Amino acid sequence: MPVVGMAGGGQLARMTQQAAIGLGVSLRVLTGAADDSAAKVVSGVQVGDDRARDDLTAFAEGCDVVTFDHEHVPGPHIRELEAAGKACRPGSAALAHAQDKLVMRDRLGKLGVPCPAYAHVPPSEPLEFLDGFAREHGWPVVLKATRGGYDGKGVWLVEDLDGAGGDLVRRLLGEGVDLMAEQYVPFRRELAALVARSPYGQGAAYPVVETVQEGGICTEVISPAPGLPGDLAAEAQRLALSIAGELGVVGLLAVELFETDEGLLVNELAMRPHNSGHWTIEGARTSQFEQHLRAVLDLPLGSTEPTARYTVMANVLGGDDPDVYSRYFHVMAHDPGVKVHMYGKEPRPGRKIGHVTALGDDLADVRERARHAADHLRWGPERKESK
Amino acid sequence: MPVVGMAGGGQLARMTQQAAIGLGVSLRVLTGAADDSAAKVVSGVQVGDDRARDDLTAFAEGCDVVTFDHEHVPGPHIRELEAAGKACRPGSAALAHAQDKLVMRDRLGKLGVPCPAYAHVPPSEPLEFLDGFAREHGWPVVLKATRGGYDGKGVWLVEDLDGAGGDLVRRLLGEGVDLMAEQYVPFRRELAALVARSPYGQGAAYPVVETVQEGGICTEVISPAPGLPGDLAAEAQRLALSIAGELGVVGLLAVELFETDEGLLVNELAMRPHNSGHWTIEGARTSQFEQHLRAVLDLPLGSTEPTARYTVMANVLGGDDPDVYSRYFHVMAHDPGVKVHMYGKEPRPGRKIGHVTALGDDLADVRERARHAADHLRWGPERKESK
Repeated sequence: MPVVGMAGGGQLARMTQQAAIGLGVSLRVLTGAADDSAAKVVSGVQVGDDRARDDLTAFAEGCDVVTFDHEHVPGPHIRELEAAGKACRPGSAALAHAQDKLVMRDRLGKLGVPCPAYAHVPPSEPLEFLDGFAREHGWPVVLKATRGGYDGKGVWLVEDLDGAGGDLVRRLLGEGVDLMAEQYVPFRRELAALVARSPYGQGAAYPVVETVQEGGICTEVISPAPGLPGDLAAEAQRLALSIAGELGVVGLLAVELFETDEGLLVNELAMRPHNSGHWTIEGARTSQFEQHLRAVLDLPLGSTEPTARYTVMANVLGGDDPDVYSRYFHVMAHDPGVKVHMYGKEPRPGRKIGHVTALGDDLADVRERARHAADHLRWGPERKESK
Repeated sequence: MPVVGMAGGGQLARMTQQAAIGLGVSLRVLTGAADDSAAKVVSGVQVGDDRARDDLTAFAEGCDVVTFDHEHVPGPHIRELEAAGKACRPGSAALAHAQDKLVMRDRLGKLGVPCPAYAHVPPSEPLEFLDGFAREHGWPVVLKATRGGYDGKGVWLVEDLDGAGGDLVRRLLGEGVDLMAEQYVPFRRELAALVARSPYGQGAAYPVVETVQEGGICTEVISPAPGLPGDLAAEAQRLALSIAGELGVVGLLAVELFETDEGLLVNELAMRPHNSGHWTIEGARTSQFEQHLRAVLDLPLGSTEPTARYTVMANVLGGDDPDVYSRYFHVMAHDPGVKVHMYGKEPRPGRKIGHVTALGDDLADVRERARHAADHLRWGPERKESK
């Protein structure tokens, strides 16, 4: 049986372990601490720095395939593994587009994929440049770190350059953050198209979902995106499959999209299991975690058929009281059909520590069930607004 | 988060780990070897003898609840843990009925539960006794070891006492095996009723399934049992829930039943996740493994609602060629919807090494899909009769 090594030990690796157990495949993780989310549930843990060349090389030695639960492993280290003949999936050439938003935008532009207008912010005269960008595309301007962002981190909305906006730009550039500007898109809502691609070239697309974000953090995913016209859903799937093919992605590719009055625009790419795909554990015949393993192992891909009319996933964020387990009782008694997934992470306020999933025929009911469970796990009986 | 300790490291513990990861509960296993099925996928492994008092006591120390993936932990050791205040679920008093078939039969008889006629075989004059038993109940007679049997081991069909039958009885008694005789029941088919019960007293029943056995080994499980009249299904569920309540079972209880022309008879009991319930991983809203954890943790039980009209599970047995993985490619390409579960066990011929699950509306098609996948994983393209 093959050994799959995953760099990173977060919840994505943790849930991949559930799929690996089913397939009989050995999963190993390289992670910073023995009590990281995945490290708690995997027997083959190497504690180390997955951004350090030597740790990564030592880890890869025992693995048939190396894959990633985040985008932060340096490209040069991956290229070195590839040069030594190690299968890295996705490969460094594809992964570069998920690691650097400017590389991604330039490439998608060349492919004719619809994206918001964007430009690199030159570290010399940045304010003058942004002023010109805003004159062309309007205020506000979206400012993004080209590398290293996640969950709303590394993205800022700049309203103007007087006062706070100008200070922010100067501070970030002073800290050495490489910045790009993007047109602010007045979208109707956010969608995500999740596809898988194998080295053999097989592709598989999941139903297109709606993602609901609060403060830059995904709080809810609805599958399929309610009321999405069939031609737009098909276009989103085609876009994602075509990007996966053109970039040579192996494994999962999540394409975050804006639905606007003028059609779809690509916002972000991720090449790994993705928060917008957690619903697939119960809601699709093949979970995204099993699918990622099948893809990186070059096994035939699994069916993406939904198992229910609607599936809603709600993220559980940490609240004020860290004793989440005491709140299982109400949640499970209240709704025997809701599925609770906890990640073994310290429940700090606002941190993603788990998710819940509900399925059914009545969308309003399914959303309310997922929302209630997630809110209760966060806050307990004194329900507050999720902020 | 609570820590659940499971004595035994087989595939039941392995699949329980998948559920524990979801619930965010820590699973530890006490098992004989570091490469046992569950030991390969659990970080908290104690290698030791789960039938040895000291190993069990040391293991229990780090656990909030102790449960079992088989029936072979000696009752006195469990009672000692209980006396020391450790939560053992199921408890020794209930578990005794799954550990000793004679204890089980005597108790079920007192409860008025329909069972085949049975009797203890006295070690003195056993042949005379069996002759009398057969005169009353007919040949053949089913001979069972009262303790320690599983998967057809510990069960023999005796056609007469001349020659082989008499030799067998003398040999077994000579080896110190405690024996009971049971009436051979001309059943239509075998069924299984799986229920869960929590310390709080909550019960939950899964749909009643048909189990297909070959050579004493379960090869296929069909959920729900095709064509089973509603009143018989309800009776089987009632029987199982009532046995669970009367015996004070905590966790899962699988009741194996004979469907006969005269109604249902109880064959065997198991108090743990059971082969007849593997279909629930995909086929029910709550898998039996999650349900067992919820029950032993005294959490509210999960929904047992089926997720498809029919679910069929087929066991994968070891064949002549141990390279099972090479046969994944055909199985997954042939049927993207079939789910493969492998247990990380050495594929010796005839050994249960995994299972496959298929779901759908057309029973004949679903059975054929599961059968094809299981046969191919065993034999490869040269399909042979499963023996």
